[in-house]
Order: sequence, then structure tokens, then C-alpha cells
Amino acid sequence: MKNPVLLVSCDDQRGLIHSITGVLLQAGANIISNQEFVDPESRRFFMRTEFEDAQGLERLDETIRAVLPARAEMRVQQPVRRRVAVMVSKEHHCLADILVRHAYEELPADLIAIIGNHDVLRPLAKKFNVPFFLAASSDVSQETHEAELVRILAPLAPELLVLAKYMRILSPAFIKRWPDRILNIHHSFLPAFAGAKPYHQAFQRGVKVIGATAHFVTNELDSGPIIVQQVIPVDHSHTPQSLIQAGRDVEQMVLSRALRLLLEDRIFLCGNRTIIFD
Amino acid sequence: MKNPVLLVSCDDQRGLIHSITGVLLQAGANIISNQEFVDPESRRFFMRTEFEDAQGLERLDETIRAVLPARAEMRVQQPVRRRVAVMVSKEHHCLADILVRHAYEELPADLIAIIGNHDVLRPLAKKFNVPFFLAASSDVSQETHEAELVRILAPLAPELLVLAKYMRILSPAFIKRWPDRILNIHHSFLPAFAGAKPYHQAFQRGVKVIGATAHFVTNELDSGPIIVQQVIPVDHSHTPQSLIQAGRDVEQMVLSRALRLLLEDRIFLCGNRTIIFD
Amino acid sequence: MKNPVLLVSCDDQRGLIHSITGVLLQAGANIISNQEFVDPESRRFFMRTEFEDAQGLERLDETIRAVLPARAEMRVQQPVRRRVAVMVSKEHHCLADILVRHAYEELPADLIAIIGNHDVLRPLAKKFNVPFFLAASSDVSQETHEAELVRILAPLAPELLVLAKYMRILSPAFIKRWPDRILNIHHSFLPAFAGAKPYHQAFQRGVKVIGATAHFVTNELDSGPIIVQQVIPVDHSHTPQSLIQAGRDVEQMVLSRALRLLLEDRIFLCGNRTIIFD
Amino acid sequence: MKNPVLLVSCDDQRGLIHSITGVLLQAGANIISNQEFVDPESRRFFMRTEFEDAQGLERLDETIRAVLPARAEMRVQQPVRRRVAVMVSKEHHCLADILVRHAYEELPADLIAIIGNHDVLRPLAKKFNVPFFLAASSDVSQETHEAELVRILAPLAPELLVLAKYMRILSPAFIKRWPDRILNIHHSFLPAFAGAKPYHQAFQRGVKVIGATAHFVTNELDSGPIIVQQVIPVDHSHTPQSLIQAGRDVEQMVLSRALRLLLEDRIFLCGNRTIIFD
Repeated sequence: MKNPVLLVSCDDQRGLIHSITGVLLQAGANIISNQEFVDPESRRFFMRTEFEDAQGLERLDETIRAVLPARAEMRVQQPVRRRVAVMVSKEHHCLADILVRHAYEELPADLIAIIGNHDVLRPLAKKFNVPFFLAASSDVSQETHEAELVRILAPLAPELLVLAKYMRILSPAFIKRWPDRILNIHHSFLPAFAGAKPYHQAFQRGVKVIGATAHFVTNELDSGPIIVQQVIPVDHSHTPQSLIQAGRDVEQMVLSRALRLLLEDRIFLCGNRTIIFD
Repeated sequence: MKNPVLLVSCDDQRGLIHSITGVLLQAGANIISNQEFVDPESRRFFMRTEFEDAQGLERLDETIRAVLPARAEMRVQQPVRRRVAVMVSKEHHCLADILVRHAYEELPADLIAIIGNHDVLRPLAKKFNVPFFLAASSDVSQETHEAELVRILAPLAPELLVLAKYMRILSPAFIKRWPDRILNIHHSFLPAFAGAKPYHQAFQRGVKVIGATAHFVTNELDSGPIIVQQVIPVDHSHTPQSLIQAGRDVEQMVLSRALRLLLEDRIFLCGNRTIIFD
Repeated sequence: MKNPVLLVSCDDQRGLIHSITGVLLQAGANIISNQEFVDPESRRFFMRTEFEDAQGLERLDETIRAVLPARAEMRVQQPVRRRVAVMVSKEHHCLADILVRHAYEELPADLIAIIGNHDVLRPLAKKFNVPFFLAASSDVSQETHEAELVRILAPLAPELLVLAKYMRILSPAFIKRWPDRILNIHHSFLPAFAGAKPYHQAFQRGVKVIGATAHFVTNELDSGPIIVQQVIPVDHSHTPQSLIQAGRDVEQMVLSRALRLLLEDRIFLCGNRTIIFD
Repeated sequence: MKNPVLLVSCDDQRGLIHSITGVLLQAGANIISNQEFVDPESRRFFMRTEFEDAQGLERLDETIRAVLPARAEMRVQQPVRRRVAVMVSKEHHCLADILVRHAYEELPADLIAIIGNHDVLRPLAKKFNVPFFLAASSDVSQETHEAELVRILAPLAPELLVLAKYMRILSPAFIKRWPDRILNIHHSFLPAFAGAKPYHQAFQRGVKVIGATAHFVTNELDSGPIIVQQVIPVDHSHTPQSLIQAGRDVEQMVLSRALRLLLEDRIFLCGNRTIIFD
């Protein structure tokens, strides 16, 4: 990720690719990769173009906008490291995976804070020199807990929140501070087993696969746009406890994959669905 | 499948394996393969043993039962071809897969009838010389339709019904005629997207995997014990129609796999869950 | 597949997408989907564009060629049913899968002939009303056998040959009659276990996955460009015989998927590698 | 893993299960889980039995051996934490995964040393308080390098060596010090792409899946008994570099899975194949 990318979403019309690539050509840009999609339901056009060598990048925005229809969303995104805060509870595996990838420069992000509603993972954060904050949730109201979260987060100005097995529901008031920028991992293949204790639900139902879902957080619990899903096979010999253990690998892989897609600007929203250019 | 198998399910107690294998040893049996499982919740013991060379098979049943606790279910199953009827609607792929496997002796079963609630698949059945019966469901009540099904099925005495994309709900009265012997394929990874039009539901929810579930039919819709589940990855470029197409391969594979497990006596029921010795 | 597709492969240069989409725009075409790729090693550009509503299709070829660099390969492909011949030996599963898909209009192809080097699968071909020809390979030289194949095939003028578990090696002289148009299924995840009896090789090596590979046939055995590969997990309980059985499902799925990609013009060759726009 | 397990491998004979479970029953043992397998080629019998409540464990060994045929291998294994040394080169991901699992008590092992032939991963080891030793391999002969390895390892007396992307070939003299106790991860689905640079080989061959293989190290390079294999799909857009990145997740998962199987005594050797009771 060392080149700028152009991100366009707008109503479809004839000649869009031709017009947009024309502006890039005039700016001297060489297209490295280019992906488009038209959603057949909404007739919305999506495009992600990675390019190099363009001149006059500061004016490119304006020039491209001029060839797009009304109500277009468009952005020329320079390579950037985003400011990311991670929220956790007691489980370590997703956080550890993100910390290792961050430490070895696999993610274009600065981990600016880890916030736990328990203090359990402070030593892990410390190993990797990322600041850890405790925002206890026991014996306080959701309102008080979220006020504490905001008190910690506001001065840090994160661009993205990652819920790495943070086991609490967030209020609409909290969510609207980071619209479409809160990433959650849910430990089931949604929409199956939304809500609490999905592995216990899976055990009771006797399923033969379990899985994990990375999605954007919206006001409706576990119902936001899905980014990545994966499953693994299980059988009758699994207990709820061994399902929990078996699920960890897939949870951390799914969350890290979604985080990378997000940081590389590969995800578009189309209603409650995601368009992913990978 | 040319050897007898011993099938045991009973309350767990010490020494069960020792006692049972003792009876087999005395009968001169050589154990080919042996699988056991104790369900930790119900403390129920399950065992499937394939053996050869046993003498006095006719008395084995009685001798084994003598070493088991009360309320045991036990059976020495000789290799057998089961009588199977397949119920279909308009989609051909699951039926075609079963017909081909049957024609090439891959399934220890006799296909005694195919019953369609439409006439569409009659030519396919005819190609493979399996009798086809029409039991129309349009413009008749469920009661009338099911009476017609029973009228066709009763004299044929099927041991097993396979719903190979038979797109109608069966009444409890019908189901209780073949308890735990009606196999259904549902075109989603249950419990997600139970009921009608699962691929349309999947499209609306924007999932990144779709799947299929083979299960026993019970009175509660799409909620019977699950036997086999598999999924395949999908992305934003899929329409409901292309999800339907993509799902066909996994549907027919899941159904045929479940059917084989059933015909080889590899499935035990444990409440609403299945124990599968494969 | 009811729209024309434009297929371009040429040396990369700036402005290609802009020029090509410009010609399409002038012809009044609406782009349905568009995929491009530049191979970083060879600097070769590949593009597949599905479009509708274009006028003057007969002249489009010429107009597009005018904006491409020298040594470009380009074609505007109208929707078409290709003439396909299938070559088989004794195993039925891949052939049966193709016959069913063909019978139910899932493949844009006309099955004009099935040629077996044994007579075993004649009844299967007959069920689906596709002409079957025997070209015996026992007790004759490869030269004689291939002369017989050509005698049968030449008047039928197939555009594509599918080797659906045809278990013999073809000579360079035969292969060059259908360059890049002979599709083979090999029953291993190539390059592992090329040549004879791959499942026996896999058993001896003690692998924990087996698979299948669909590839174009070239003069070097099992070394042509790979189109589709899939694997399934296996364990120590598998014998060579049960590996053969377990592999069938994946073989037929891989071959049918490759055949569909080929018939929909989704495969480009780039040296010994394939670019696949799916 | 808090119960003892009985591990038996011997020539098959009638009544083995009955005799062995008889001894366990007399010792008052309750069988938690029991798995057997007879290799059809060698007629060798394998059994792994987890049990609880047995009395006179110290004499159980002898009593069981008395009912086994000659040339039996047998062991009653108490729950134990094995002493494990990890050998690395420059890549961090497999080591990091093992360190995290070790830190959170997911592996019944004591990590007693990490030895690198480069110094790059010393800081990672230090974060997790595991001793790191440098045994440089540049500018020294293999003999000198291995002498240094032995000098470090001998006093630590590891029971198991894990090659976590240690990128050098070990000599037979070194290997025979830890027979069947050196675990390696190879970054391909063996036997494809043995030896150096498997991802570059995979790229050149144009495969559509890549994978990883955990195996025991033997004198023949990348040819030891395979324990775990997994693959992931790739396509034409992957470069050798992106294959390397994509492969990391599967490498670490495969290695950790094999390590767990080994530490839980779930692997038997049967010639160059593994029997795995999971």
C-alpha cells in the first residue's frame, strides 16, 4: 500500500469508467489495479482504482468530481496509517493477533490505545508497548461506562474502533460517534446465533460447522453489514468449551482479515451489504 | 458394507466395552472397526462395531442384550439394501445425483419410487428406470395432498423417505408414519435462514458464505437433528439467482453424504443432536 | 450469458482502459461487468468486458483493434453454444455430471459426442441421447488408437475436447489439433502425484488432503496451465480405494467448474499460468 | 488433559480390546474416550484410551503388557508438561503464535529455549520471557553450526524440537539425537514444492491453492511423516510475495495444531504415515 487509491460510489450511468480513467490519464496516472461493480438492485456504481505517477493530486479530487453524477461519493486516498483503538474484555487471542501484526508492520495502522472493561489483558498490551486503559463495566450503568470510554477515547481521536471480543452492547449514542467505523467480531456465522453465548447455542442446536463473522456495528445487535465470514467443521465430540477453543483461530483470522480490508480501503457499503474489492 | 455391525446406545456404566467385546470374542468375531462415544450431558453411551466371522449371529442379539443395562437400544444389523422413496418438486440436481449414485451401486439402497408434486422430473426418473408418481399439490389442501402421498407410499413400504428439494411442509400426522426416517436437504446453513427462500434471505443479509444442511424432519420446521452441513464462500457479485446456482453443488453433496451415512447405520440420535461415526 | 463479451490481451500501456471503454461508449454499449489484470512479470494486460446495447457489433472488432498496441489479441465474442466432445474410459462420475448439467441447460454447449476407449459408458450416454463412439485402445498402438479418435472426431469438428477421466496419454501430434482446447481432470492436487495412480501415491505418502486439478493438456504430462483446484481432508482410515471414492465428488466439481469457465470465456493464458475472471 | 492415557501399538490379534479394557476395568478405571485403528496393510493395531480413577497406576504398565502380543509398544502416559525448544530463523509469525498460546496456557509444554540462526527474533522472545540463544549459521560450516546447536540444547534436555520456520537442513547426525521428536512446518502442501522457495515454485506452476504441512523431520528432506496439512485458495493476482503473506496464517495454524496433537500424545507412527486420534 504505497500508492494512492481512488474510491468512487455513485449512481450508475453510461461512460463512467471512460470518464474517470480519462481524468487519471490526463493527470499522467498509471493504473495498477482497477475494480468496478454495479449493484443490480440499487443501480449504484462502485470503483476502486490504485494508481501511480499522477501529477496534481491535490486537484484530482475536484477534476474527477466534475465528471461524476450528482450525489456521488468520491475520495482520492493517500497511503496513510490510521489511528486505531482496540476494545477488549478478558479473551486475549484476537488482541494478541492484532498486536503481533502491528508490531511487525503488517497493518497500516497506529495502535493508539487498548481499552478493557477488565484489567486482565493489561500485561499483554504492556509487552507490546501499547497504552492500556481500564474502563470497568461492573457495578456501573451502561451510561457511566460509556461516558468513561468516551473520556478516554475523545482526546485520542481514533479513526477506527475494533471490538476484539469486547463482550458488551454499545448504545446508539456511542455508536453514532464512529459511524461505520466500529468493527466487531461475533463468534458465530451470523445471522445464526446472534446475541449471547453463541457457542452454547451452537452446541444445543447440534450444528456441524461453527464460524465467525466480522461486521460493522450498528444500532441493531449483530445485524450490521458483514465483511468477512469463515467456518470450520465440528462434530458430536465437541463440548461448548471445546467449541470455544476451536473457534478462536477462526475468530482471530476473520477479524484481522476484516481489519486489513478496512485499512486498505477495500470495503464499500451498499445498504446493509458490503462490496469488497480484494 | 459387507459385514454386520453392532449398534448400541444405553446409559453409560463401567465395563461396557469390555463386556460387549467379550460377547463378540466368544462368538469368534473379529472386530474390523469400533467407535464409541459417551455424551457428557446425558451420560448416554453409543457404540458402533463392524465385525466379521461371528458364529451364531441369530443369538448374538440376545447375548449382547444380557450384558447391557436396562433401557438399552441394541441391534445387530446385517448388510442390507434399504427401500428408499425420494420426494421431489421441480429442481433436478439432488435427484439426479442420487439416481446416478444408485445406478452405479454406490448406495446400499433400492430406489422404489420417486414422487413429485409436479410432473417436471418424470423424464429424469424414466431415464434411470425408477417409477415416478405424480401427487399434485396445487389447488388441493395439504390434507388431500398428503393422503395421495400415503396412498402411493403405503403399498411400497419404504423404510426411508428422502426429500430431495421437495418444497413443501409435511404435517405431524404424515411425519409420525416415518419417525426419524425422513431426510431433508435445506438450502442454508441452519439455523440461519430457516423457512422459505433462504437464498433470497441470504442475499438480503449480505452473508459471505452460503451452505446446505441435511437433517431429519421433525414437527418443527427446519429444526430437526442436523446430520451434515457444508458451506461455500460467496461475495457481493452474487445475485439471489446466482446464489441458487452456486448452492446446488453443495446441496447435492450434503444430501448424498447424509444419505450414505444413514444407509450405513452411522447416525445415532441423542436428543436433537446426532452422533455420527464415520 | 446472453450478452457479448470483449476479450483483450496485449502489452500493457497507459490509457488502455480509457481507449477501449471509449470505443464501447461510442458504440452505445452499456458495460455490465468489467475485469482487468496486468501480469507484473510479463507486463501483459488482460481485459474481459461484458456489455449490452452496442450498435455496429460487426465493426466493433476493427474499431477496438485500432486503439490497441501491436501484437494484441482481441475478440468480441457473441453468446454461443460451443461444440464439445467428451472422452472417457470406465469411470462414470465426471461424465454423468456433465450429462446432467447439459441436459438441464446449465452449460452453453452442445455435447456432440462421447468417445470411450472402453464400451462401459455407452448405456449412460444413451440415457441422455448423446452419441457414443468406441475407440478401443487395448491391443492397438497409440498411433492406431489416435488415428481412430481423429477419424471419429474430424467430421464432428468439436471446438473443445473434455477428458473426463480418459486415462490415456495423448501424443503431441494429437494435441496440436486442438491447441489450448483440451481440458483434462487429474485426480490429485498437481504438481503432487502427476502420472499414474495418484490416489495410491497419496496413500503411500500419507497426505492429509487429497484433491483434483483441471488443466489444459500440453505435451508435457500433467503440466499444462491449471484452471481449477480443490482439495478435501482425509485421514489415516482411508485406503487407496476409499480415497478414490472420496475424490470423485471433488473431481466432478472441479471439472464442471473449469468447463463452465471455459465456455463462458473467462480464462486467459499467460505463459503456463491462467488468468481467470470469474 | 488431566487424565492418564494408555497408548498401545502392536500386531493385531483377536480379543485385544477386550483384554486391554479388562485390565483397565480391574484397576477400577473409567474410560473417558477410546480410539482404535488397525492398519490394513501392516495389520498393526493402535489404541489410545483416556481414563480416570484407576488404582495401582504404577503396576498398570506391567499388567497391560502381559495381555499384549510380542513386539508391542505400550505406555501409560501421565499428564505432563513436555520440555520444548523452538528453532527459528527470521520469520516471526509461527513463533509468535506459539509464544501466545504458551503464555495463555493453551499448550501442555514448557518453552525452555528459542534458538535462532539470526538474532532478529530475540526481542519477541524477550517480550514473553523465554530464553533466546543465537547460533549463527552464516560463514560457518553446517558441522560447526550444529555443534553450537547441540552445545546450547544438550544441557537443556528438550524432549521436543519445533522448527518454526527454521530455514536450514539438519544433518542425519543431528536428527538422530531426537528421533521422531523434531517437528517441522513446510510452507507447501507436500509432496508438492519440497525444498527451497516453495511459494516461488507455486507461483511459477500457477497453482490455485497453496498450503502448509507439519511433519516429522527425517533424513530425507521434507519427506517425513505428515501430521497436519491445510490449504487456502489463491488466484492469478497473487505474486510470490503475496503468496508468502497469505500463507502465514495457514502455516502458524498448521504448526500449532500439530504441536498440540503431539503434546497430547495423539500421534502414532505407522511406517512413514501417521495415525492421528483427535
